[in-house]
Amino acid sequence: MRNIKLTIEYDGTNFVGWQMQSNGRSVQEEISKAIGQILREPVTLIGAGRTDSGVHARGQVANFHTRSTMDAQAILNGLNGVLPEDICLHAADDVPQSFHARYDARLRTYRYFVSHGPSPIGRYFQWFVKFRLDVDVMNDAAQMLPGEHDFESFCKSEAEVNHFRCTIMKSRWAEASGMIVYEIEANRFLHGMVRALVGTMVDIGRGFLPLSSFQEIMTAKDRSKAGMAAPPQGLFLEQVLY
Amino acid sequence: MRNIKLTIEYDGTNFVGWQMQSNGRSVQEEISKAIGQILREPVTLIGAGRTDSGVHARGQVANFHTRSTMDAQAILNGLNGVLPEDICLHAADDVPQSFHARYDARLRTYRYFVSHGPSPIGRYFQWFVKFRLDVDVMNDAAQMLPGEHDFESFCKSEAEVNHFRCTIMKSRWAEASGMIVYEIEANRFLHGMVRALVGTMVDIGRGFLPLSSFQEIMTAKDRSKAGMAAPPQGLFLEQVLY
Repeated sequence: MRNIKLTIEYDGTNFVGWQMQSNGRSVQEEISKAIGQILREPVTLIGAGRTDSGVHARGQVANFHTRSTMDAQAILNGLNGVLPEDICLHAADDVPQSFHARYDARLRTYRYFVSHGPSPIGRYFQWFVKFRLDVDVMNDAAQMLPGEHDFESFCKSEAEVNHFRCTIMKSRWAEASGMIVYEIEANRFLHGMVRALVGTMVDIGRGFLPLSSFQEIMTAKDRSKAGMAAPPQGLFLEQVLY
Repeated sequence: MRNIKLTIEYDGTNFVGWQMQSNGRSVQEEISKAIGQILREPVTLIGAGRTDSGVHARGQVANFHTRSTMDAQAILNGLNGVLPEDICLHAADDVPQSFHARYDARLRTYRYFVSHGPSPIGRYFQWFVKFRLDVDVMNDAAQMLPGEHDFESFCKSEAEVNHFRCTIMKSRWAEASGMIVYEIEANRFLHGMVRALVGTMVDIGRGFLPLSSFQEIMTAKDRSKAGMAAPPQGLFLEQVLY
């Protein structure tokens, strides 16, 4: 059996999310169908991260096992030829049998885009926050995150995980071309974590919560203490490293 | 009578263009309808530039005359409250009676976005060119444009204009965050001009046409000599100055 790694970009607007669900189009299902069509073989597609409905990816990674002898470049071209226009593969590579897109990921990078003003052009790709935001204070909060911490307060309650500890390598807000962009890198992310962090930091940035509350929310290990989740359309899974 | 100037952003994807047409949704019609709803008065909306179907605007300008006494800020908020999500007004200002959005414009700025790779996320906002492009040569062509020239070779043939001369203030290709962006500023633009210029310069950049052909095409005053029009979705009307 071969093991093929895919690097995937998608516009999440019209998907129920990465994962196959009975109630609509998922990215996983569309790519699985395309593979079935090109390789004439049903496969199990393992994704690195389960993005929610409306969340985008520029660098999602997935893998699948196949008996096909088609070369990786031909698989790439074949799949891109049949995939819908809101999904595109940037790479298809043969990887060792043992490679697992989800369990072997060492580092995942997400970005979240916040805009100061309403924008029809960006409406599916950013969150318009109508309050004036203090980016310095948001960065003071963001800088509390690097290192290993328990993120239960920022995890959707239905999540089935053994523990809530994540090691954050980077957490930073920056202003770029009229937007405020949050970048976070970690070894793992819990369900809803980036959106809960962004929602809480925006509450701090607009003065609705004091900066000191951020540490308190972390310590509480209770999702109800954190802010509302930021909406999905501002979130991008940028990269997964192995 | 008052004269109100509007500054408008729109995602052109789902419009037949700026101008009212019998065959679909136009930006002009949507805004005119919104004005009718808020001010209870039919108006004639004059736009600075007639963008084609699929072309976007971050800074379209339009004006209309009204007997309403509603203040400009209330008009702005009222219109934004009823406009569809792919149109947004950034400003509404009282201007002198004589102000005409189209005839008084001194300078219009357009940008055109070309991407090196396919991108589902950017598919409605850029042109993916699969050829390798020599941006230096494209800039050599772009730099022939500043000054007054006859652009008949870059004008759609059905255009009804008195003359084809335009004065170009700026014409430059730049590379930015994985894209190639063309910016052009001029006192006026002919119908289809930016897309014809971009299509021709891309033909030069990919080596399909020699650089020397650009001057020859200009001199020919014949649309059939220039390259294919670049597709609409990469084009943005950025700003109109008076």
